[in-house]
Amino acid sequence: MTDPSLLPFLIPHGIAVVGASSGPEKLGYGAARNLVNSGFGGAIHFVSNRPGNLFGRPVYTSLDEVPDPVDLAVLIVPSPAVMQALQDCARRGIRAAVIVSSGFREAGPEGAALEAECLAFARSQGIRLIGPNCIGLLDTHLPLDTTFLPPPMPAAGDVAFISQSGAICAAIIDWARGQGFGFSRLVSLGNQADVNETDMLAAMACDAHTRVLTLYIESVGDGRRFLEVAGQVARQKPVVALKVGRFESGQRAAASHTGALAGQDAAYDAAFERVGIFRAGTSEEMFDWASALASCPLPGGRRMAVLTNAGGPGVIAADALETCGLQLAALSEKTHTGLGSLLPPAAGLHNPVDMLASASPEQYAACLRLLLDDPGVDGVLLILPPPPMHPAEAVADALIPLVQAARKPVVVALMGETLIQAAARRLRSARVPEYRFPERAASALSVLARRAEFLARFELEDHAITSKTWRKGQIRDTLGPVWFKQSALEGKPGSWLDPDTVECLLRACGIPTAPVRLAATVEEAVVIAKEVGYPSVLKIASADIPHKSDIGGVVLGIMNPDEIRSAFEQVMKNSRAARPQAKIDGVQVQRMVPPGQDVIVGAARDVQFGPLVMFGSGGVEVEGLKDVAFALAPLNPHDAERMLSRTWAGRKLDGFRSIGPADKAAVLDVLVRLAQLAEELPEISEIEINPLRALAPGQGVVALDVRVKL
Amino acid sequence: MTDPSLLPFLIPHGIAVVGASSGPEKLGYGAARNLVNSGFGGAIHFVSNRPGNLFGRPVYTSLDEVPDPVDLAVLIVPSPAVMQALQDCARRGIRAAVIVSSGFREAGPEGAALEAECLAFARSQGIRLIGPNCIGLLDTHLPLDTTFLPPPMPAAGDVAFISQSGAICAAIIDWARGQGFGFSRLVSLGNQADVNETDMLAAMACDAHTRVLTLYIESVGDGRRFLEVAGQVARQKPVVALKVGRFESGQRAAASHTGALAGQDAAYDAAFERVGIFRAGTSEEMFDWASALASCPLPGGRRMAVLTNAGGPGVIAADALETCGLQLAALSEKTHTGLGSLLPPAAGLHNPVDMLASASPEQYAACLRLLLDDPGVDGVLLILPPPPMHPAEAVADALIPLVQAARKPVVVALMGETLIQAAARRLRSARVPEYRFPERAASALSVLARRAEFLARFELEDHAITSKTWRKGQIRDTLGPVWFKQSALEGKPGSWLDPDTVECLLRACGIPTAPVRLAATVEEAVVIAKEVGYPSVLKIASADIPHKSDIGGVVLGIMNPDEIRSAFEQVMKNSRAARPQAKIDGVQVQRMVPPGQDVIVGAARDVQFGPLVMFGSGGVEVEGLKDVAFALAPLNPHDAERMLSRTWAGRKLDGFRSIGPADKAAVLDVLVRLAQLAEELPEISEIEINPLRALAPGQGVVALDVRVKL
Repeated sequence: MTDPSLLPFLIPHGIAVVGASSGPEKLGYGAARNLVNSGFGGAIHFVSNRPGNLFGRPVYTSLDEVPDPVDLAVLIVPSPAVMQALQDCARRGIRAAVIVSSGFREAGPEGAALEAECLAFARSQGIRLIGPNCIGLLDTHLPLDTTFLPPPMPAAGDVAFISQSGAICAAIIDWARGQGFGFSRLVSLGNQADVNETDMLAAMACDAHTRVLTLYIESVGDGRRFLEVAGQVARQKPVVALKVGRFESGQRAAASHTGALAGQDAAYDAAFERVGIFRAGTSEEMFDWASALASCPLPGGRRMAVLTNAGGPGVIAADALETCGLQLAALSEKTHTGLGSLLPPAAGLHNPVDMLASASPEQYAACLRLLLDDPGVDGVLLILPPPPMHPAEAVADALIPLVQAARKPVVVALMGETLIQAAARRLRSARVPEYRFPERAASALSVLARRAEFLARFELEDHAITSKTWRKGQIRDTLGPVWFKQSALEGKPGSWLDPDTVECLLRACGIPTAPVRLAATVEEAVVIAKEVGYPSVLKIASADIPHKSDIGGVVLGIMNPDEIRSAFEQVMKNSRAARPQAKIDGVQVQRMVPPGQDVIVGAARDVQFGPLVMFGSGGVEVEGLKDVAFALAPLNPHDAERMLSRTWAGRKLDGFRSIGPADKAAVLDVLVRLAQLAEELPEISEIEINPLRALAPGQGVVALDVRVKL
Repeated sequence: MTDPSLLPFLIPHGIAVVGASSGPEKLGYGAARNLVNSGFGGAIHFVSNRPGNLFGRPVYTSLDEVPDPVDLAVLIVPSPAVMQALQDCARRGIRAAVIVSSGFREAGPEGAALEAECLAFARSQGIRLIGPNCIGLLDTHLPLDTTFLPPPMPAAGDVAFISQSGAICAAIIDWARGQGFGFSRLVSLGNQADVNETDMLAAMACDAHTRVLTLYIESVGDGRRFLEVAGQVARQKPVVALKVGRFESGQRAAASHTGALAGQDAAYDAAFERVGIFRAGTSEEMFDWASALASCPLPGGRRMAVLTNAGGPGVIAADALETCGLQLAALSEKTHTGLGSLLPPAAGLHNPVDMLASASPEQYAACLRLLLDDPGVDGVLLILPPPPMHPAEAVADALIPLVQAARKPVVVALMGETLIQAAARRLRSARVPEYRFPERAASALSVLARRAEFLARFELEDHAITSKTWRKGQIRDTLGPVWFKQSALEGKPGSWLDPDTVECLLRACGIPTAPVRLAATVEEAVVIAKEVGYPSVLKIASADIPHKSDIGGVVLGIMNPDEIRSAFEQVMKNSRAARPQAKIDGVQVQRMVPPGQDVIVGAARDVQFGPLVMFGSGGVEVEGLKDVAFALAPLNPHDAERMLSRTWAGRKLDGFRSIGPADKAAVLDVLVRLAQLAEELPEISEIEINPLRALAPGQGVVALDVRVKL
């Protein structure tokens, strides 16, 4: 449900433009003109310090004079006059204002002070604010247009656009006009003194005319709230975001690999992945995706057919589908036979289906029907260059009823420009997504597949977000309050935990380690070996002996106390013989860790989104290879599984060529536990297990090196 | 110089359209119409079996009747009549024909036979053919248009387009018309029975009106010839290619990692990289790049400035520049001060420079001048959304003289559509590249930087393509003819070479190995150790003893014959004591290879381009990580260096965090030698060294495992 205090922005009964102007070069003129021309059905009032008449309506000199109804003010007065205008709003009982004026936070410290003052006043009076420094909002269905942009309004459509940049908003409106792309609502948020992207996302999602939400954002106001709202919205309607400022955090200093890699951008990726927001690479891609999401049924899988009347574009389409992670469907025998009976002998009957240049509108339609009927086809990319023999619009007309009736998505790559304009218009008004190049059409199909997979998650997965075997608060309880008091966890932020505390933490978390312990005597070694477990390893403990195994100072694979005793004697004897001068501290005892696959797991804290869990290729190489995946904590096993599938290190756990499989289940478990540790212990800023060794299936994992930072 | 036999296609004196038709729906009508309308200055003749009059000219019933001059025939008759038409051409003395007709190889075996027959006849008569199954060619400057496509011709420009797909050609012509994008020449090659992409590339490159060549290709006819021709062309004029069919070879079975990864697509990448062809990802990108390459000066480096009147598009541009591998220039103090004096206090004076929405045409121009004058700026990405206060075309007018006079590239992101049309037209006619989105503008700047770097190679590098220290034929000479007779190199294709032959081959190549040799006696061990070199390693040789080091069966770091002797005794004694029943064959002696960085190097043979050298991350992971680079043999050290720089494995050789540097020079040398081996010994189909261990700097490399396939 929309926050009631935002309703006057969305469904106002009466609007007052404060700063309306009769000078055509003024923003206050543009806003008045647009509001009148938009066909807004409510009351429209103009206020200006120059009384008179504008667009056949009286201009009042004060908000006080404005008759009812009026529940929204659009302020286009110089910034120093905004405070007065807000006071007038309060007096007049107006509880919503769009502040178009600039000269606030974006203009320096004085402007920021003014903005804070306006906000404080608005809050005290219960007035909600959009802006300042914004373009305003428009709704093509209501209709309503409070912007000052050159007319006409964009076409009515079913995609809403929320933008943190006014210039992008203006450019997109103009671009959409040229493309025939329609919008349901647009809002430019400006400085977001009060209403921000999250508020608007929630409000816009309730709009019956909006099927898809698009966002241009540079940052979000409150990460966890954004996640909560976007998570609810995205389950109802697709959300596509263009998040910019990708490289801003590149220079951030970091103490661990996890810290270095878990930049702000990785956090946004993880956040979007968690809630099912599709992150577009470019503005064009965002709207390409939005049109497909707004009008296509979702595919049952990733197997796509290409239907073309020429080889070249078919090859481009096939390449593009594979690049997007889709597959070329294998056509059934029945489809094959059907196509054969429809098409000339030289036609290509395998996917891509090449009907040849002679393809008629009827052949296009009949072949499309066959492909849609094939149970092995999840969607169709249809290519339509200007057909040499038939006008493109005739083909479009033949296809439209089929595409509209289809329960699988069909997207069209209309190639060319002038010769396909009529076809483009017809497809658009029939809500069939059309793109100039096959690459863009393929990308649109892929987002449909991703949307289908995202929605399927909620049916298949247990979405209690934490692991079943793992109770919230368990780590804190296991450690106990006394431990917290005594441990170095009360140390100062930025410091590193000592090894014993780390060991204790991981034990509470249920993550196995292989600590190295010092034994001064043979009987101490026996006791320790029992603790660390067999098989164990004994190494001579001496700073003076660098290559211990060369001088017989290491014994591997010790299975019992007797072997410990003889191994102790042996390494002592060998060491004294080889390096009589060396100072010997005793022996190091460690559980012998069998070979396995080394990976890195870690968690860091993002300012916006909180704990972020990392998984990737282990060792120092993780930063160089960037074979890593991030996800927000908490994790359920499905989330963890998706992290693995996004990295080579994760896929390899299933085995690859001569590399045997490893205990993937245990790695998944560590990720879930680590995420919970990061959630429960906000004292920890970074934790990194590098490497975590994944042993053979059923044998578990061992954390070989762990660093924890407060 | 253009092959003289192709001149009639490019500068014909008289053209006969055979199959000209008065039926407006016929291709023979379209071709006649276009030829007449094109304004072609030479003679135009029509031939048809229906005599009469067409476009005010007589229609002859036979080529024999056509008066002089006539040196080019355009054949648009049904395929069965093409042979006759060619015979007529031969009789009439015409030595060039464009066969538009389809029904040849593309239509099945019968068509293929017909095509072969036509080609054989044409060859016998010295007739050159374009097509069959093509759209023809056009030249906007001559002018000339032999195509049958709907008018008008594309605008005159300086980009030539050579296409292996007629449909792409038709779509691109129509698209270009809508974009106002100009072409110098276009040719559709059809089935390429005779004239292919390489012939046309060479011919088109000589055209004075052509500044950039663009190619749509699915494959090349003769890889090595293509390389030679394209290599010459690309040093004179930029070449951009859209090579499709990227995934075709995905399923190729392969015996080694090198074979599996060295697909056809990697070979094309390597070929393009070698000769300096820029491979575009999409058609749009190809022409985006072409317009920048056609009209911009090249940048001196990768440091770019962004000039904008709004924050959002500036951030998008900054992201896009970094994504393309460009850098945001750090502006000088002088530039900073200059900008400050021009702009309001709230303006952003750091790169991206944000002039704010109030920016006037004069401010745009003055700021651009400052940025161009800054020696730390190599190029400018200028952003122009519809400025709220001034029409975009006023800004365009103010910028054009500056951009034209600049010795650094300036590209413009014109955002929007309808409001920027006038500005777009003015920029285009002033030859200033303009793009709808900042991402596309950034990509155009990056190709300019790559072009500058490519041209710089030839000034800086010794381009004798083989290494200086390495003579052509040296490997063959070193091995000697006798060795070839005796070695398994005469074995049957597909078989693997035995270890001794491999060893011998690598020695001849100068690539160090660490073979494992068996010594039955202590004195044999001493001799072998001398051969393999110290420090060496001794291991007990017994199939019955799996964990040799556990029972004291391994001695490392042996430095001299005495130590060999005692180590021999020791491992024998330990082994007999531990496993009295084991069958012992002696000891294995191997040079001890110190730790280092393991990489993979290999070479495979591509059908089109010949030997292809691979470098990448070593071990089995090379396939999973795909951290590999390919280059065509032969290599010079600069080529090899570029391979390293494209992979993480290569960059890591310089050291990274705790990983010390390795002997990069030795790795480069191995790559050069391996490339020469692959060149000189075509008997070898695949060779792979995996791993090749790169030791500390100055310590060289060791091939630890080598496989060679015939």
